[in-house]
Amino acid sequence: MAKSVLILMGSKSDLTTMSKAAAMLRKLGVEYELTVASAHRSPERVDRLVRGARDRGVGVVIAGAGLAAHLAGVCASATTLPVIGVPLAGGKLAGLDALLSTVQMPSGMPVATVGIDMATNAAVLAAQMLAIEDADLAARLEDERAEMAKAIEEAAAELES
Amino acid sequence: MAKSVLILMGSKSDLTTMSKAAAMLRKLGVEYELTVASAHRSPERVDRLVRGARDRGVGVVIAGAGLAAHLAGVCASATTLPVIGVPLAGGKLAGLDALLSTVQMPSGMPVATVGIDMATNAAVLAAQMLAIEDADLAARLEDERAEMAKAIEEAAAELES
Amino acid sequence: MAKSVLILMGSKSDLTTMSKAAAMLRKLGVEYELTVASAHRSPERVDRLVRGARDRGVGVVIAGAGLAAHLAGVCASATTLPVIGVPLAGGKLAGLDALLSTVQMPSGMPVATVGIDMATNAAVLAAQMLAIEDADLAARLEDERAEMAKAIEEAAAELES
Amino acid sequence: MAKSVLILMGSKSDLTTMSKAAAMLRKLGVEYELTVASAHRSPERVDRLVRGARDRGVGVVIAGAGLAAHLAGVCASATTLPVIGVPLAGGKLAGLDALLSTVQMPSGMPVATVGIDMATNAAVLAAQMLAIEDADLAARLEDERAEMAKAIEEAAAELES
Amino acid sequence: MAKSVLILMGSKSDLTTMSKAAAMLRKLGVEYELTVASAHRSPERVDRLVRGARDRGVGVVIAGAGLAAHLAGVCASATTLPVIGVPLAGGKLAGLDALLSTVQMPSGMPVATVGIDMATNAAVLAAQMLAIEDADLAARLEDERAEMAKAIEEAAAELES
Amino acid sequence: MAKSVLILMGSKSDLTTMSKAAAMLRKLGVEYELTVASAHRSPERVDRLVRGARDRGVGVVIAGAGLAAHLAGVCASATTLPVIGVPLAGGKLAGLDALLSTVQMPSGMPVATVGIDMATNAAVLAAQMLAIEDADLAARLEDERAEMAKAIEEAAAELES
Amino acid sequence: MAKSVLILMGSKSDLTTMSKAAAMLRKLGVEYELTVASAHRSPERVDRLVRGARDRGVGVVIAGAGLAAHLAGVCASATTLPVIGVPLAGGKLAGLDALLSTVQMPSGMPVATVGIDMATNAAVLAAQMLAIEDADLAARLEDERAEMAKAIEEAAAELES
Amino acid sequence: MAKSVLILMGSKSDLTTMSKAAAMLRKLGVEYELTVASAHRSPERVDRLVRGARDRGVGVVIAGAGLAAHLAGVCASATTLPVIGVPLAGGKLAGLDALLSTVQMPSGMPVATVGIDMATNAAVLAAQMLAIEDADLAARLEDERAEMAKAIEEAAAELES
Repeated sequence: MAKSVLILMGSKSDLTTMSKAAAMLRKLGVEYELTVASAHRSPERVDRLVRGARDRGVGVVIAGAGLAAHLAGVCASATTLPVIGVPLAGGKLAGLDALLSTVQMPSGMPVATVGIDMATNAAVLAAQMLAIEDADLAARLEDERAEMAKAIEEAAAELES
Repeated sequence: MAKSVLILMGSKSDLTTMSKAAAMLRKLGVEYELTVASAHRSPERVDRLVRGARDRGVGVVIAGAGLAAHLAGVCASATTLPVIGVPLAGGKLAGLDALLSTVQMPSGMPVATVGIDMATNAAVLAAQMLAIEDADLAARLEDERAEMAKAIEEAAAELES
Repeated sequence: MAKSVLILMGSKSDLTTMSKAAAMLRKLGVEYELTVASAHRSPERVDRLVRGARDRGVGVVIAGAGLAAHLAGVCASATTLPVIGVPLAGGKLAGLDALLSTVQMPSGMPVATVGIDMATNAAVLAAQMLAIEDADLAARLEDERAEMAKAIEEAAAELES
Repeated sequence: MAKSVLILMGSKSDLTTMSKAAAMLRKLGVEYELTVASAHRSPERVDRLVRGARDRGVGVVIAGAGLAAHLAGVCASATTLPVIGVPLAGGKLAGLDALLSTVQMPSGMPVATVGIDMATNAAVLAAQMLAIEDADLAARLEDERAEMAKAIEEAAAELES
Repeated sequence: MAKSVLILMGSKSDLTTMSKAAAMLRKLGVEYELTVASAHRSPERVDRLVRGARDRGVGVVIAGAGLAAHLAGVCASATTLPVIGVPLAGGKLAGLDALLSTVQMPSGMPVATVGIDMATNAAVLAAQMLAIEDADLAARLEDERAEMAKAIEEAAAELES
Repeated sequence: MAKSVLILMGSKSDLTTMSKAAAMLRKLGVEYELTVASAHRSPERVDRLVRGARDRGVGVVIAGAGLAAHLAGVCASATTLPVIGVPLAGGKLAGLDALLSTVQMPSGMPVATVGIDMATNAAVLAAQMLAIEDADLAARLEDERAEMAKAIEEAAAELES
Repeated sequence: MAKSVLILMGSKSDLTTMSKAAAMLRKLGVEYELTVASAHRSPERVDRLVRGARDRGVGVVIAGAGLAAHLAGVCASATTLPVIGVPLAGGKLAGLDALLSTVQMPSGMPVATVGIDMATNAAVLAAQMLAIEDADLAARLEDERAEMAKAIEEAAAELES
Repeated sequence: MAKSVLILMGSKSDLTTMSKAAAMLRKLGVEYELTVASAHRSPERVDRLVRGARDRGVGVVIAGAGLAAHLAGVCASATTLPVIGVPLAGGKLAGLDALLSTVQMPSGMPVATVGIDMATNAAVLAAQMLAIEDADLAARLEDERAEMAKAIEEAAAELES
């Protein structure tokens, strides 16, 4: 059975950005759960959602948070599923704080970090992970790539004419 | 009964720096526990140590960690005791990553952050917190201040002569 | 008698941000004084307010300032009460200057630094310090925590439905 | 059949760091190829190695590079397999250049970035991806976690005694 | 026959900035091609455009890109013509990511980098390169300089009166 | 009567760097006092030394400090003499913290900041200020300039031969 | 005869910020010249204005520029008068580029740097330099200080009432 | 007649790094002059060397400098030949100051900037500029490329065996 993706965000205000991950997963035909859970304000909730994830059929966790973004790291410590971190640009430092708080994890405890506010890329990356053993999903990812290349060609044609 | 301080560090390799906090607390006559507990590698251990801290007579928690330093934040979420964070300069970014990961906490969940590798200052700050209601400790802090001022005067005298 | 909090800001223009500290202290039932005093433009005023603070029943000092934010450090040198620094994002560097000017204090002279513009967290931290020896205040802080966790659950429920 | 990992590095001088990824993969029982290929100096070589990777049984690509680290991004554009980027601290900027060059990928083209010089974490992350559909490997990852937690307990015991 | 300039940008959204390069080249009487080609989304297109450039009479390549700006570096690896990189400020980090991704190229593979969003300067630099062996173009560049100096004198006269 | 320069440093450990200011003042024939005084550990001492400076014949104050370098700012608030700040690279952040803490002073309270660890330049700048009304000193500064230009010519001659 | 101040800016667009320096000098009763001159676009003009400055009765030069702000440094190399640099926040990097380009001058060639966009402080600093030997101006600077302190007291009174 | 390259450095201490540019130019068969000239300490010397460069048969200027690296910019303002800037990592900020001071040039006045300390790349870039109209030199650059690719293949073969 196809694995799904668990999308967590630290605050409801992150929904605008994080819903782009959901949109891309829908486009790629990947199932997902999306909810709010805070590493600091509701740690038990995070733990409960993530610790049981593999048994619920989740294959990848995506966690988006800003500031001292600990959410992805806390998820990573609660599962051996791959965890993708999306640093969010919520504070005064344009997300540089969230980027460093997400990517600079200690040895043995990786977070697969994507660019600041790049929730779409988190979804593509999650799909790539699930597609390692899913040839149909891999084909849909190839289609998505071809679509991007074609969009470039069309933009070029329009620009050159 | 006088409250004590719980000193946590994320890795045994942090002991050289964090033992300076212990040394200053001893000098100021403040009891402390010092141990290792990792936010990511042993989260239950952190939770157990911190959640029961107030009942054990702990008044302040000091947490030192480097890189994506989540330890202080994880402590803060497990207690309403004040938590002091010491960002450690363990990685390639000279502790800037640890500083931002420690200080930029979300609303409602503060970490009292001191300078990079400044474990001594964490101890002084912990003692200041305990001295709010402890006049004897406050007096010892004033003595420490006087000693520092005198050291400056002596250095000046030596330099000017 | 319950201790109060002294809130200082370097300029009247900092009031919008710093009044959030006052609001949170009111919510937590903590007394406070709030006024303007500049480390550079009115150093005697700062000195007078801070040096006499402990005797007036103040337990914690909160100092908010931007740019080369010296206010918290100057307060710290005038008292052995704990001083909380709020770096303000007033200039062109998004508060990074204020953060480093506040947190990187020399040995023996800590400032308990919170995140950029995070005046609410300064208030929570001050309350946590006062709650070390005040079980009622500690209980109110626990209530605040429970409220935050509940808000997350509600946001999650709304999002999932 | 179990998928393998392709480890690329931009220069032979990166071997000291990148061989840690190989060591961790060996420990976790994951097959790998390790070689040198430069995004700029041998682009055809990178293209050939990566484009044919899925058909050779490769499940994940790990790419380590310093400075304007383009290697992981170039790999990502040549395959829909997940690509893990390891920013290396080879130049004067302590790897901050390599981190930003690796993580800030444009929409649709993610690189799963780990911390600066954190080749071991790249290996753990690759194994986590392969373990989504491989229960035995997932179990070995859990064992590795348990080992880390035990090491913390032992360090704590030693420190406390 | 006079050489021309090939202007590439990674995305159609970069046109507002990059068209300034085209405008300055027109003013200086230098022929150019301008089109879209993405290092990651259409690498073959970049390769085709750049690899054949010298034979088409192109003398200089200008490449503008944001985020982990790999376009100029990918161009540089596909030709021995000089490649000018324009780091674009498209993301949250104000172009610092694009600057480091463009300028910190490895040994043997330079990109002539200009300031963030400074497409006009890329055009002037391209013209300077073509003018090494083209006295007429050199004279037009001198005229442009004289015009700038005169504009300063006029601004000064206006300001002083 | 010729004015002198007051050189202050925050700690005796700053002497190696700050004595370069003294050496250059001696070379330029400018009188100076040099001593230790800490903005935080001995604020009264700083105040006493600086407040009486103009009456003692001091024309310029030089203050060197590292970390959250408040010394120059505290001097500036205690006198209307020009204060030169030397940010010192004492901590983990290579002096960037000291630079921002020194230069980003609020409106009305300038510190004339020189480069990180550039104590020699502080001395030259102090002499330039005193030379506004001292033609002999101005002449000695011109001699120093000529000496520097000659050293360049000699280095060039040596290199070219 | 009282010395004057020469205010230069690199571009007419810097007038909004730099005219604050002129306003403060007028308030303090200091004569000034204000004009435009670019280090790169009109180097002879800069040289002519600065080289003759001392003989025209100029005591201090103020130079404001953004980006790779070379103007203050170029002025410093053309005179032994003190040169004050105002880094301007004109580009994408919020003036950090201008700050480093202005303050990090090589040995023997200081620029007295003030904060980003802090033209008012440049004027106060220039007046402080001129006041070393001008007791009347020194008194006016003390009045300005008293006015600032009084403004703080009034703001405090308003806030407390 | 083949054009030559003028290599300038701001200080004799830059020779170790800048001589790498000379070595690469020799390898590529390009004539060069190499000497010392400081933007601030010997501006007339810089002006004389650069202003007459085109007439002496110079086709490209390379300028290496550290700290507030103004040398390349000053060269750029004295000629319409292309100027390549090499930011040098001489100070405490690892060359970030020199990079920004070199690359962030104002409109109309480009400096072709290469990576920090990357003098070899400056030489390759200069040769690429001269090779626009010199097929023999272009061929030698292609040979150099082939050599780099072969070195990668050999390193890979060694690593894989």
